[in-house]
Amino acid sequence: MTSVFRCSPKLRSAARIPAARALSTTAHLRATEKPYFPNEPTGPSVSTAIPGPKNTKAATELNEVFDARSLNMLTDYSQSVGNYIADLDGNKLLDVYAQIASIPVGYNNPHLQQVATSPEMVTSLINRPALGNFPSADWANILKTGILKAAPKGLDQVFTAMAGSDANECAYKAAFMYYRQLQRGGPHVEFTEEELQSTMENHLPGSPHLSILSFKSAFHGRLFGSLSTTRSKPIHKLDIPAFDWPQATFPLLKYPLEEHAQENAQEEQRCLQEVERLIQEFHNPVAAVMVEPIQSEGGDNHASPAFFRGLREITKRHNVLFIVDEVQTGVGATGKFWAHDHWNLDSPPDMVTFSKKAQTAGYYYGNPALRPNKPYRQFNTWMGDPSRALIFRGIIDEIERLNLVENTKSTGDYLYAGLAGLATKYPEHFQNLRGKNRGTFIAWDTPKRDQFVAKAKSQGVNIGGSGQNAVRLRPMLVFQKHHADILLERIEQIIKLL
Amino acid sequence: MTSVFRCSPKLRSAARIPAARALSTTAHLRATEKPYFPNEPTGPSVSTAIPGPKNTKAATELNEVFDARSLNMLTDYSQSVGNYIADLDGNKLLDVYAQIASIPVGYNNPHLQQVATSPEMVTSLINRPALGNFPSADWANILKTGILKAAPKGLDQVFTAMAGSDANECAYKAAFMYYRQLQRGGPHVEFTEEELQSTMENHLPGSPHLSILSFKSAFHGRLFGSLSTTRSKPIHKLDIPAFDWPQATFPLLKYPLEEHAQENAQEEQRCLQEVERLIQEFHNPVAAVMVEPIQSEGGDNHASPAFFRGLREITKRHNVLFIVDEVQTGVGATGKFWAHDHWNLDSPPDMVTFSKKAQTAGYYYGNPALRPNKPYRQFNTWMGDPSRALIFRGIIDEIERLNLVENTKSTGDYLYAGLAGLATKYPEHFQNLRGKNRGTFIAWDTPKRDQFVAKAKSQGVNIGGSGQNAVRLRPMLVFQKHHADILLERIEQIIKLL
Repeated sequence: MTSVFRCSPKLRSAARIPAARALSTTAHLRATEKPYFPNEPTGPSVSTAIPGPKNTKAATELNEVFDARSLNMLTDYSQSVGNYIADLDGNKLLDVYAQIASIPVGYNNPHLQQVATSPEMVTSLINRPALGNFPSADWANILKTGILKAAPKGLDQVFTAMAGSDANECAYKAAFMYYRQLQRGGPHVEFTEEELQSTMENHLPGSPHLSILSFKSAFHGRLFGSLSTTRSKPIHKLDIPAFDWPQATFPLLKYPLEEHAQENAQEEQRCLQEVERLIQEFHNPVAAVMVEPIQSEGGDNHASPAFFRGLREITKRHNVLFIVDEVQTGVGATGKFWAHDHWNLDSPPDMVTFSKKAQTAGYYYGNPALRPNKPYRQFNTWMGDPSRALIFRGIIDEIERLNLVENTKSTGDYLYAGLAGLATKYPEHFQNLRGKNRGTFIAWDTPKRDQFVAKAKSQGVNIGGSGQNAVRLRPMLVFQKHHADILLERIEQIIKLL
Repeated sequence: MTSVFRCSPKLRSAARIPAARALSTTAHLRATEKPYFPNEPTGPSVSTAIPGPKNTKAATELNEVFDARSLNMLTDYSQSVGNYIADLDGNKLLDVYAQIASIPVGYNNPHLQQVATSPEMVTSLINRPALGNFPSADWANILKTGILKAAPKGLDQVFTAMAGSDANECAYKAAFMYYRQLQRGGPHVEFTEEELQSTMENHLPGSPHLSILSFKSAFHGRLFGSLSTTRSKPIHKLDIPAFDWPQATFPLLKYPLEEHAQENAQEEQRCLQEVERLIQEFHNPVAAVMVEPIQSEGGDNHASPAFFRGLREITKRHNVLFIVDEVQTGVGATGKFWAHDHWNLDSPPDMVTFSKKAQTAGYYYGNPALRPNKPYRQFNTWMGDPSRALIFRGIIDEIERLNLVENTKSTGDYLYAGLAGLATKYPEHFQNLRGKNRGTFIAWDTPKRDQFVAKAKSQGVNIGGSGQNAVRLRPMLVFQKHHADILLERIEQIIKLL
């Protein structure tokens, strides 16, 4: 694994195009396949320090009216293509962060361009419906040929939402209403006068002290209910009132997995027992268990399929709902359309939430009893955005047409093997490499993580971190082996700069 | 106020076009002005029972995959124009509900059509940015020429969001962080180790027991934090855990206002005293007071400008933030761009939230200290949707071009006068007529409200209710006097059918 790209940023700036070409030639010597985007750059090109002068000037202007302290880069989307993101100074970076794991089929995807200019799109943009009251006549069709075409096995209904946080919260609401309905004795049992009155004061029994069980290091969003289940970092939670809800330990697996099989199995057992104990004992009864297939913001923490089957079994046994948060893992990135497809569950999750790469959001469910017993209990004005539902349909079409889940699986295997090679060569920079057989959803720990991520831009790569120490890869589904070659070379280059 | 439209639904069905024409001719005899939509129907046309056969069939299909129990009508947006909404059976109704008060400039507005097909729109649809990290290079410009062009006086910054609920919750989060920052002694005081640890367990002191004070009958959304401030109806709240937050009484004014001036002023004083007492005494300290200029879902409850000036004064005196929820009242419907423009405040609200007619959402603020002291404290992946921000910009342009706030003011005055006439004629059906000098934001109570709203469709009008007994009018900003004539005639007709 050598890099032809050894010149300093200053030198590189002067000679950027030849460098990029040379690199991409090398790359193609290794992995040759038909590119999905014929007009993609052949490699990154970096001609200024990043942020460059235009970016810095524009960021100052933006910051006057919009908090720009979390700015990563001001982006020139007109110049971004496929896996490459362009900044305002003309730099083009290989993007393996992809809008926080939210771009599935590449920048300026031609098929999505068609969707975006279709008459259906125009009408949905200018005649925005209140979907629960006045859906367009073709809404059922848009759902069936789009969002529901991709529905997880066993879940054939959807509640649509705006983004991951509210999708998760609406799933929690469904869980609470379902729990209380069981307690009451069924959907036909009317609310008591005491319930009707007390809920107007946010008090028991109308506003019950129920809970959602989530896991340490979990991330499920940042609104008040979702944030109460988020346990990623203090900065996400400080100063915000939270519900008194329980958290269980998420397994902390040791790597390489092959060498710690028994230890890891014991760890997972211990965590499952903790879940069961909390369900039985926590003072605010648990209506649902919420879990990510791979804890994403929290540091790319994995658990085995057996662990998740255990969760499904425990929740079933205790009549607690099992919700899987596929906001970051869903839509192909793990080499299956839904990450929970890796688990071989006997019965599906009760609800699966989605957002990010779907470009729209919501939760899938199968059991009709998860519809609250009366209309308007689960409702809001917009209940999602049909424009974004049309984009998801276009994404699903594109995934099918190009077989992108399979691409992500095989590219992921290829990339993982390359990273494993780097890990052998640079063990001090690659700890706990993880994500084998999980498509391109790969991460590793490194002691100089923040420097790694910061330096990556100068080496032509836009990359993100997760948790305290992890570098997380979140390429798009159109990320191919020749991109993997470039990425591997750049990673090595970054390491050498640390 | 007579109606030419007296035939039964069945008869009308056979003769619908002539009836509509006859009606609209009559209407034009009274109010003649240049229509904004030359291609609008001249009047409603109803040719089937509503819901008609196609609607009923399609609703059954939709309900298989999407809870359709709150369905009002399956809409044919391609046939909807201006103030007229078309259903799947070809009926065209004068729409004074407008997607729960969310359509400002008419169905299939030609200017929005241009916006929807612009290159900027296409790129924002297919390259959706994580706005906090990778905004497009023109994001500052889009804000300044759009969302911020309409900013309330004194508030020159914005945090963008997806819909009313999360906009409100993000404003609450800003309020809580601000409150704790003041307590700590300023933005430079670091979090304690105890705070950092306890917040990961949702416990004090990191997750403080602070509160937002809202009002009885308020509606601020249906996610967990916003729902804790919503006090409209039990059905919105039942079975959902809620924070222990305080509610104050919203003034219950007596109508006509002129006849109850002293009584109403006393009522408002009493309510203000209750607010002050709660701020001083409630066990979970109040970080902010949240209020709607007109309680909308809760029954169109008004209060005087003096009441709101009193709230501003009390919140200032107690160092509590004052947030105005303009989700339903904002963007012109009350005859001013923002409803709180009616109040003549000495100093602006600390935050103003918006959604609905803006077609996008967020909160405005002016004080830079409302930015949390560190980046990523107020953050999420998408932080809104630039596609919808572009639509809002188009709406603002259209409002300016056609002078639609002024139109809404004058049409509202005209409509109010007509309704006052009906109230004199049918006092048993018109109680507490309200919304004088508030544009078309008009409502009244009626003992047979649900029947009134249900029967309206057969008379060619799509209309909504609020609270327990109110009929609420929420026409678009392109609602003109000739539409008001039709509406007045149809209202009289509906009354006669009750």
